[in-house]
Amino acid sequence: MSNVEVSRFLDESRNRVEGYLDSNLPDVSGPAGTIAEAMRYAVLGGGKRIRPALVFAACEAAGGRAEATIPVAAAIEMIHTYSLIHDDLPAMDDDDLRRGQPTVHRKFGEAVAILTGDALHTLAFEWLSRFPSGDDLAGRRTRVSTTLATAAGVAGMVGGQIADLEHEQRPTDETMLAWIHSHKTGALFAASSEVGGILAGADDSICADLRAFGAELGLTFQIADDLLDLVSTAETLGKTPGKDLRAGKTTYPAMFGEAATREMGEASLARARAHLEQSGVHAETLYALAHLALHRSR
Amino acid sequence: MSNVEVSRFLDESRNRVEGYLDSNLPDVSGPAGTIAEAMRYAVLGGGKRIRPALVFAACEAAGGRAEATIPVAAAIEMIHTYSLIHDDLPAMDDDDLRRGQPTVHRKFGEAVAILTGDALHTLAFEWLSRFPSGDDLAGRRTRVSTTLATAAGVAGMVGGQIADLEHEQRPTDETMLAWIHSHKTGALFAASSEVGGILAGADDSICADLRAFGAELGLTFQIADDLLDLVSTAETLGKTPGKDLRAGKTTYPAMFGEAATREMGEASLARARAHLEQSGVHAETLYALAHLALHRSR
Repeated sequence: MSNVEVSRFLDESRNRVEGYLDSNLPDVSGPAGTIAEAMRYAVLGGGKRIRPALVFAACEAAGGRAEATIPVAAAIEMIHTYSLIHDDLPAMDDDDLRRGQPTVHRKFGEAVAILTGDALHTLAFEWLSRFPSGDDLAGRRTRVSTTLATAAGVAGMVGGQIADLEHEQRPTDETMLAWIHSHKTGALFAASSEVGGILAGADDSICADLRAFGAELGLTFQIADDLLDLVSTAETLGKTPGKDLRAGKTTYPAMFGEAATREMGEASLARARAHLEQSGVHAETLYALAHLALHRSR
Repeated sequence: MSNVEVSRFLDESRNRVEGYLDSNLPDVSGPAGTIAEAMRYAVLGGGKRIRPALVFAACEAAGGRAEATIPVAAAIEMIHTYSLIHDDLPAMDDDDLRRGQPTVHRKFGEAVAILTGDALHTLAFEWLSRFPSGDDLAGRRTRVSTTLATAAGVAGMVGGQIADLEHEQRPTDETMLAWIHSHKTGALFAASSEVGGILAGADDSICADLRAFGAELGLTFQIADDLLDLVSTAETLGKTPGKDLRAGKTTYPAMFGEAATREMGEASLARARAHLEQSGVHAETLYALAHLALHRSR
């Protein structure tokens, strides 16, 4: 798949999920108007929408119709967004900017930011439970909800966040670094890819391969993030190390050096490809996403 | 139903839900051990367990078996607990004590408290989606999840919390006070009662009556809370007004005076009873719960 084609796929995915989000997020009136405004600000303020694209691509790769997965893809993007809002809070990463705009707590205050995250979190599961009971999809809803709840919770994303926090400012090792990333980032990537397969009605073995692919893609994506943090901060601030380093967080480049980290990224991409080959699905778009996840500029 | 009988019912309900919570909350090992510990601290540290009791009583009143609703009742208690943890945070109500013990952020720090709330929130929906697919319950799961997600979100509990925050320190009116309480407290009470009916397989009209009863019980409970806040603080601190008043929150006694508030509580209890009579369910336990909600000492 050419760069033009994968860009077009990502644009279409973004339009699909943002159209759904814009139509279905609560509107901004009534006594709870502030939170509706903050929800829209957080969710519709940009983002790569890589997780929704992964749901769509995995569903199509397994022979399903991507349109039918839009509410699930939108719910996953809301789970991701709620976690960013809470991560950015002063008690956590204390970030002022997200996607070039003030973070939710900077714009609306901390209390509103906490509640906005909570509201998006609940709404994600509301959408998952409201998923239209089409002929061949009704029986798959519960499995999708369970998969996503497990990925988002203490056995997945939140577990990774707490381990990440606890290992700031203290030495860690490769095993712990891998554990943190496989939970904090990998779990939701794995689940996004897996639910694409579930919603396509794919066999369990294909769903398992898609899950393994998604988990690996999470690692590829994280390695690229670590490299981008290093490079883009160096460009902006001269010699000053990147934000993760300043925060005392262990990164792949900090542990292994930049050259070895780039090699690890390629190795991860190769493992991701192997999972796709094993699955037997139409893997072109999924592979293109993985390639782009590593070789992106932002 | 005698006071002894309703106390016994509440004790049994508490044992049921706490037994389930204790067995099913994650255990405290591994890299995410801190959060597992904090989740247990928050959930198992006491509480009246009025919402689970309401689920059990509504289910039995509608002819169902309370045992089958335990995972749902436990999930509701976790939604309630997550909201308390986030409400207690410094950016929100800034509370040091909850049920006589340090609040989660006082004991574990703010970052862990935010994530603990998030983890309980996700786990609640995981349990709702895992609810065992018994013969007559499978088809009711989605309706239960949707009902609870709607009640917990921006159209319910979180919407009430944001309106409550926004109306601190500024004059409000009776309409807004009722709106806040019907969302912040009433929505989850209404849903607890309704899902008891849904899980019993009750007709839609009975579920609607149970929902109306639960919403009214939420108001009864809130009025009693306002009165207790006034009295118990006055007993402890002499003439100093209660905590809600100090926080600039409007309460029923602040707006109407104590005597009129007591009358409003009795009127609310009478309306709750009328909903039960209309429903035609075996209402004795539910009415006893409502009576106790108003005439309790803590």
